[in-house]
Amino acid sequence: MDTVANETLQELLELAHCCAARGWVPATSGNFSLRDEVGKILISRSGFDKRTMGIEDLIQLEKDGSVSSTSAGKPSAESMLHVVIYRERRETRAIAHVHTIWNTLLSGQFVANRHVALEGYELLKALSGVTTHRHRELVPIIENMQDYDALCLELAQVLKKYPEAHGVLLSSHGLYTWGQSVAEARRHLEALEFLFEAEMRRLQGSPK
Amino acid sequence: MDTVANETLQELLELAHCCAARGWVPATSGNFSLRDEVGKILISRSGFDKRTMGIEDLIQLEKDGSVSSTSAGKPSAESMLHVVIYRERRETRAIAHVHTIWNTLLSGQFVANRHVALEGYELLKALSGVTTHRHRELVPIIENMQDYDALCLELAQVLKKYPEAHGVLLSSHGLYTWGQSVAEARRHLEALEFLFEAEMRRLQGSPK
Amino acid sequence: MDTVANETLQELLELAHCCAARGWVPATSGNFSLRDEVGKILISRSGFDKRTMGIEDLIQLEKDGSVSSTSAGKPSAESMLHVVIYRERRETRAIAHVHTIWNTLLSGQFVANRHVALEGYELLKALSGVTTHRHRELVPIIENMQDYDALCLELAQVLKKYPEAHGVLLSSHGLYTWGQSVAEARRHLEALEFLFEAEMRRLQGSPK
Amino acid sequence: MDTVANETLQELLELAHCCAARGWVPATSGNFSLRDEVGKILISRSGFDKRTMGIEDLIQLEKDGSVSSTSAGKPSAESMLHVVIYRERRETRAIAHVHTIWNTLLSGQFVANRHVALEGYELLKALSGVTTHRHRELVPIIENMQDYDALCLELAQVLKKYPEAHGVLLSSHGLYTWGQSVAEARRHLEALEFLFEAEMRRLQGSPK
Repeated sequence: MDTVANETLQELLELAHCCAARGWVPATSGNFSLRDEVGKILISRSGFDKRTMGIEDLIQLEKDGSVSSTSAGKPSAESMLHVVIYRERRETRAIAHVHTIWNTLLSGQFVANRHVALEGYELLKALSGVTTHRHRELVPIIENMQDYDALCLELAQVLKKYPEAHGVLLSSHGLYTWGQSVAEARRHLEALEFLFEAEMRRLQGSPK
Repeated sequence: MDTVANETLQELLELAHCCAARGWVPATSGNFSLRDEVGKILISRSGFDKRTMGIEDLIQLEKDGSVSSTSAGKPSAESMLHVVIYRERRETRAIAHVHTIWNTLLSGQFVANRHVALEGYELLKALSGVTTHRHRELVPIIENMQDYDALCLELAQVLKKYPEAHGVLLSSHGLYTWGQSVAEARRHLEALEFLFEAEMRRLQGSPK
Repeated sequence: MDTVANETLQELLELAHCCAARGWVPATSGNFSLRDEVGKILISRSGFDKRTMGIEDLIQLEKDGSVSSTSAGKPSAESMLHVVIYRERRETRAIAHVHTIWNTLLSGQFVANRHVALEGYELLKALSGVTTHRHRELVPIIENMQDYDALCLELAQVLKKYPEAHGVLLSSHGLYTWGQSVAEARRHLEALEFLFEAEMRRLQGSPK
Repeated sequence: MDTVANETLQELLELAHCCAARGWVPATSGNFSLRDEVGKILISRSGFDKRTMGIEDLIQLEKDGSVSSTSAGKPSAESMLHVVIYRERRETRAIAHVHTIWNTLLSGQFVANRHVALEGYELLKALSGVTTHRHRELVPIIENMQDYDALCLELAQVLKKYPEAHGVLLSSHGLYTWGQSVAEARRHLEALEFLFEAEMRRLQGSPK
């Protein structure tokens, strides 16, 4: 894709490799994408081990999520969720989706509340626009489902309802987070995952 | 073994190295095997550190588990369990056996129930044939014993009783999982171990 | 900076890389500094991934924290805290600041006590001047705030009040620790983080 | 030391490097030693980061623990404990001493019992001479103290009292384990540390 700098592609691949090394995309799960200046999307193909993700594992999609005529391969079943995020968050240029132990546990525990609130942590300031640990970050949680059309609809509504959110959880499933660059998406990912682990360990260690 | 592609052998070795790096085959535990098209088995020899597993550490077995005349070395004491799995699961081409903290704890805690049920996790879909997180995966648990003949008999019965199972636990011992390729065995391994950790952490963090 | 040996610079960079690899400086957090013989400070610039920290990411500050005329770039917002530590601890030549899960949890839990006491661990002897596990190390905890002038004042007072302390925690934020060399700062960092994890796991595992 | 094969030295160094990478010898703690055929001991010098341990970091001791005339440097304060183990366990050729989170917690919790019992785990069979998971392994725990003469006396008594033990814990301090080769010491180390973590996590997760 000529409209994306090679350096940006390398950043995306390296992010995938690092997530794989940390066990954040186990069993061929997870996916990663980029959007170029004219709105085309490059996204990881379906079902492969992200440890070895290369440029050849990326598929080009049109704005509406259809596979570009110049591309081959099967996009991930979840690529339409990326399309929804790019549509609802106009500044977004990169998206990461990971399955971690802590986002799985936290999203499972709080799904009935529709969101989890993170508050009081200095690391909240790694989320763009947040300037104090007193910030209350609401991470919306969507109940997981296999009907991707319904899931896309729900995701679009949640993104409208929580305009300040830096990520969305699917219950007992995983996190979607994004940024205006790969570096920002990575910073949001690392910050949110740190906060999920800290919050769950805090709750699990507290008197019952 | 000329009937196994070199690429497949490399995949098996790399799986062993990755398991070693994650601490999943501590203290020379664990073993890994392949079955070729005519039914012969290549399996890791007994008692060595899997960090450095090479082709020279693989022993060739006949269908019945006897060491091939062309091979040397002592097979793992548990190689007969591999033979049973290959016999009961005709499509299986690769098997992994690992000792992890979480499979040890989970299998110890649930042995009296004869199985542990995993349900509600998106990552269940990494198990072949599973299409929804609503799936209820029963992982049978066999009480650990040192009588390998009795263990083989019990394993064969359990595999018949749970025809849909993707893995079997031995209590306070470890996991056996398999696939129609090394890649599938690896995907099942990573998925089950993720689910074991998530489930145990969920249970341990819940009010007593 | 000609007054700092290249070997010392490499030690600082390697410390940053190791902290990044362990997840101790997530989401571009954390910072690292050196002080030379005449009192000038080299400190990591603001907001970048420490995995790739190089000499070009270091900014030179005067004793009072102002950026040297020969230097470019924006110092970390927290660089004034380094200046305070160098002023109050005259022998200090290196400072590390990290955000870890365990220092975040421990400092959040004990902030109302103004410090956390670590006692009975052999690893306390890795802190300079400590000769027995019976030593009671008080790690002061400052309530986190975004007013850096007030934070500097508070930090200076805490350093005077706890003249024997080897590190200071900011609540739900992170650890500052230091040493008369990079090696000593690293030793203090590894010892304190080990003790924080051990102490929190001990407390969380105890009957409620 | 001409009486030790270079391959054996490399094994010891690699063991130290692996322990460092796993965080088992934090803050320059831990030590490692070998005994040659005539009874001389090679042991890591005092106080350095084991990540980079090389042959030049080994000091030669006589049977009684005195530094050989051909050697230089300061042996670890704990080298006399190695001397005691080599004296009481005549077949021992290698010793490892590590500080881990789990051996620290377990030894602190059970010190009043004088030992911790490990039972029911398959991985017990990685300890030489153990043939069944029904084995009950008693790991003696010595109360930590800074009087090394008294500690040596206590260690000698404990080794006589528990002739079958594969390791000894010092409370809130660490593990000593050994083997007839570096490979066996490593296997005992990995097995015991796995069992310590499993046992502590099991106890901490159980209803109070």
